[in-house]
Amino acid sequence: MGKMVVLSAKEVERVLAIDDVIKAVEGAYEQKALGKGIAWPMVYEQFEPDVADMDIRSGELMASGLFGLKLTAWFSKNPERGLPDIYGTTLLCDDTTGEPLCLLNASAVTGLRTGAAGALGVKWLARADAKNLLVAGAGHMSAFEVAATLAACPNITHVEVWEPRSSEAPEARVEAIRETVARVLSACTEPRLADTYEIVAVADGEAAARRADAIITVTPATTPIIQDAWVQPGTHISSVGADMPGKQELASALVARARIFADDRAQAVSSGEFEIPVREGAITPDDIAGELGEVIAGMVAGRENDEQITVFDTSGIAVQDLASSKIAYDRAVEAGLGQTVEL
Amino acid sequence: MGKMVVLSAKEVERVLAIDDVIKAVEGAYEQKALGKGIAWPMVYEQFEPDVADMDIRSGELMASGLFGLKLTAWFSKNPERGLPDIYGTTLLCDDTTGEPLCLLNASAVTGLRTGAAGALGVKWLARADAKNLLVAGAGHMSAFEVAATLAACPNITHVEVWEPRSSEAPEARVEAIRETVARVLSACTEPRLADTYEIVAVADGEAAARRADAIITVTPATTPIIQDAWVQPGTHISSVGADMPGKQELASALVARARIFADDRAQAVSSGEFEIPVREGAITPDDIAGELGEVIAGMVAGRENDEQITVFDTSGIAVQDLASSKIAYDRAVEAGLGQTVEL
Repeated sequence: MGKMVVLSAKEVERVLAIDDVIKAVEGAYEQKALGKGIAWPMVYEQFEPDVADMDIRSGELMASGLFGLKLTAWFSKNPERGLPDIYGTTLLCDDTTGEPLCLLNASAVTGLRTGAAGALGVKWLARADAKNLLVAGAGHMSAFEVAATLAACPNITHVEVWEPRSSEAPEARVEAIRETVARVLSACTEPRLADTYEIVAVADGEAAARRADAIITVTPATTPIIQDAWVQPGTHISSVGADMPGKQELASALVARARIFADDRAQAVSSGEFEIPVREGAITPDDIAGELGEVIAGMVAGRENDEQITVFDTSGIAVQDLASSKIAYDRAVEAGLGQTVEL
Repeated sequence: MGKMVVLSAKEVERVLAIDDVIKAVEGAYEQKALGKGIAWPMVYEQFEPDVADMDIRSGELMASGLFGLKLTAWFSKNPERGLPDIYGTTLLCDDTTGEPLCLLNASAVTGLRTGAAGALGVKWLARADAKNLLVAGAGHMSAFEVAATLAACPNITHVEVWEPRSSEAPEARVEAIRETVARVLSACTEPRLADTYEIVAVADGEAAARRADAIITVTPATTPIIQDAWVQPGTHISSVGADMPGKQELASALVARARIFADDRAQAVSSGEFEIPVREGAITPDDIAGELGEVIAGMVAGRENDEQITVFDTSGIAVQDLASSKIAYDRAVEAGLGQTVEL
């Protein structure tokens, strides 16, 4: 049938930096708003709730000349077997011929593109003077949220990391996050220097939320971890964790009093942060002010004043992966990286 | 992340025969009926109606220890560019760890498993004394329908091939079909010999339908090609072509007077042969007597008497691909075939 390139996690990491991915995701969101990118319906299956699931996100991004999919499998008991808990695999196809071009390990892309999504919410919707960022959740993905936000938002200088599942400050996790952030930022064309920001661990989520200008939630929570009374006027929240039916990070009342945005309207309601508030009647799908891409494209107003609370739900869409993976594919081919296989 | 095997079309063809695939698909249908196999919702996109489309079929087959997907892209203008009009790519993942195991060129599997589906409809639903098969449609897939039916149904001895888009008998196509059928059958463990059947081209579809005991339709038709009055009592019809919304091969009145079966109830109504009859009110989804797997598993009666018209709609489900691809994967690994890549 022809030849295809396969890229390993290491090869993707070698050619892809967070500044590239922020630009790619920003462009992909905008293209989607302009009708030049589509997110097709997500397929998902919970093999065992809270233990193992998988999803397939697919779509087309005309500007990159691609359609394709990412299959993500999460098997939480894998580490006991010495295996990674997440396997991500992306398939890119040429949208003028249908030909499969590239299969790549999506792990490296997923961290970067998910970080970019949360960061773009802060960049486009937080107050211009926002300095303090709270990241709720101290897991593997948190470092990418911090790194991407520091890269996308020069005004953010103070980052607090809170782990809602613990009563203690996640000091050890924050040490690891600092290292990952420094590594991720150092790969940028114009790296942000370590003396321009600080990252600290905090134990009291409520107090941290009260002093935050921007909050990114990145947890697997199924009951809200950010309460309505904790959030001050003028705060922006990027909700990253809720990506399947039944997940919720923000109190429904908080969502109801905010100006709310999504990466994809339909998915935000079917399987993102707005699913439960809609089901509870706290909001209706029409309360979604717009997709972030519509804000980027200038079609919809973002934040309207400094008192407004804004919420951006990103449940993750294929155009992010397509745009980011395209860069990795092009650069790998140019650099002679990748394994060529015969199909 | 680990290693994965990639199988080219040639490698798959070398290890997979139609008799294997008939058994695999029969087993997969049965497993699905027993709750040990699932077809997840199909994702599809018409890039340009009647010119280019793609679909993603995914699911899990517990008996094979797999979940996965097949992406099929159809770009009808590709032959003008010297490219194949269909690209099919299957990804197999281990259903206890989520690990991607194998990427394979699906073209070889698709022909065989689609042939097996139509043939299994004839095997399980045609009259026991059925001898004459009409295949409506003389395209690339027709040869696999003929070969699979000859392999699965020793009583079928006479095959007529009709091309509804032409007023002439498709002699040249039938010559090619004969060759493909002989090649496909010769790979079986107990090959059916060429002197046990005949394949002829016919110009008059109505006359052929009137004398057929079994009919397989395998066309891209969007208006019925088999009329109600053409079909005699006791005939079985396997409808293979309709695999996307808007396609229809059988007159709605014909479907309404038949005992009808599907490979997947939901998909038959959303994007298979029963979509339009349901939309027109000729039948309701409850008129589907069962899935073919339920007949195979003995849970639902198949044909009830020799006067009944039976219809089996196969719109194609992932468990067919998973079961068939698993055989190819196991045999290729055993034979040291395939390209190993690092993910």
